[in-house]
Amino acid sequence: MIGPVNNHRIRVAACQVSLGIGEVDRNLATARQAILAAADAGARIVVLPELTPSGYVFSDAAEARALAEPADGQTVTGWAQLAERHDLVIVGGFCELGGHGQVFNSAVVVDRDGVRAIYRKAHLWDAEADFFVPGDAEPPVTDTRHGRIAVMICYDVEFPEWVRLPALGGADLLAVPTNWPAEPVPAGERPMMVANVQVAAFANRMFIAAACRCGTERGVSWTGGSIIAGPDGYPLAGPAGADEPELVLADCDLALARSKASGPRNNAHADRRTDLYR
Amino acid sequence: MIGPVNNHRIRVAACQVSLGIGEVDRNLATARQAILAAADAGARIVVLPELTPSGYVFSDAAEARALAEPADGQTVTGWAQLAERHDLVIVGGFCELGGHGQVFNSAVVVDRDGVRAIYRKAHLWDAEADFFVPGDAEPPVTDTRHGRIAVMICYDVEFPEWVRLPALGGADLLAVPTNWPAEPVPAGERPMMVANVQVAAFANRMFIAAACRCGTERGVSWTGGSIIAGPDGYPLAGPAGADEPELVLADCDLALARSKASGPRNNAHADRRTDLYR
Repeated sequence: MIGPVNNHRIRVAACQVSLGIGEVDRNLATARQAILAAADAGARIVVLPELTPSGYVFSDAAEARALAEPADGQTVTGWAQLAERHDLVIVGGFCELGGHGQVFNSAVVVDRDGVRAIYRKAHLWDAEADFFVPGDAEPPVTDTRHGRIAVMICYDVEFPEWVRLPALGGADLLAVPTNWPAEPVPAGERPMMVANVQVAAFANRMFIAAACRCGTERGVSWTGGSIIAGPDGYPLAGPAGADEPELVLADCDLALARSKASGPRNNAHADRRTDLYR
Repeated sequence: MIGPVNNHRIRVAACQVSLGIGEVDRNLATARQAILAAADAGARIVVLPELTPSGYVFSDAAEARALAEPADGQTVTGWAQLAERHDLVIVGGFCELGGHGQVFNSAVVVDRDGVRAIYRKAHLWDAEADFFVPGDAEPPVTDTRHGRIAVMICYDVEFPEWVRLPALGGADLLAVPTNWPAEPVPAGERPMMVANVQVAAFANRMFIAAACRCGTERGVSWTGGSIIAGPDGYPLAGPAGADEPELVLADCDLALARSKASGPRNNAHADRRTDLYR
């Protein structure tokens, strides 16, 4: 068990939960329960999975559309209320109905001041291309009540160019709502999705909190692996297993991410040879 | 023990060896012995550490310069002879004296046709900046006798932008001569240098063979961790430990790296949102 909150640190929670496709009420209740548990445990920053209210494995575009809600819908409104009541930053994924009827795989950042940012997934995985319009805006870096927080979603984090943008933009912590479909993992190995998050943190000397799902949905099982990685890439908490819900909690001294020093004379960002990259 | 050579695959060796600063004759003998052991084991591609003949922990620039040799010096000539005699591709690091007197942290690619490429480290680590001029050319991708092979050195591989270039240029295998100074590794964790190589392979669906050192030199101990990672990022062989020399051997179906498919409808390279990266 993690101890009392250290005043120099922010307690971060990655909420690994089990969700069901189309079970919006139950999913939102599950999320609410996880948020309250995180708040009870002293967390100030709470990360939820991708597409939390809707679930992920849509049968077709019509199902995704029917489960989409606007950015001022019940999910975001409810999370904003919880953020206000408990002085939290909450980052979670939802199926967004855009102003022109487009459907996006989105995530919201709320704090006690309300909605601070909406991000729309830019790199779509597999059948997502049938359901969603890809986003075309960079991951926002938001100076929230509890730190400079960026957000991207699942497959996005596999593109180091994409991770670099909010890192260069000054993010202390990157929140990654995710639904990692389980893939075969060799014995003794950590899932590559998890290692990728660690190395993304290391490459940018920033914190990353990734919240995934557990269980199965329409035959798809999930990796779990929710993790909070420090700026050195090593896990501060997690990775969680694949089978059970878990509240992954870590105290993060977010100020550490303000230095990109990687050695006495090296700097992970300043050492980039941007004159040579194409 | 690894079995007979599969005809559809190329056997790759990452030679983890112990070297000594300034002990050129002994170091070259060690390298020769490792190359011959790799050839005996059926390897066609052999990767040696960074700065193999000279060692790494120079006292000052004068020492580095005294240990530098031109690209047609004894090290490269000797490796080219071994490559010709045993039909190998050899990639190894050496301290290069350039045509205008500059000293570079370089690596050579030789096969039975002779010197195929020279690469000069572009991202310098710590005191290297006192000894070396940084390279300003991209990692070469060379269509060798045994595959399309790229090369970069140690700290270079921590920059995903740099890894991307030869990957986009069609490299099947990235050879990484390295000298990773040992850093604290949390219990149960794999060194971040090793995880970084794995994720670099995964992000580009290519093979990476990294050859490091073991032992200590002037108070610096090395990570070891020599590894051959497959296009899915998982180790095909290694990571080696920190303490002992090791011949890390894996059979690599290099053709696998020609497909960047990361799922039925996804592609690690084509899915990049280059319209959005800055």
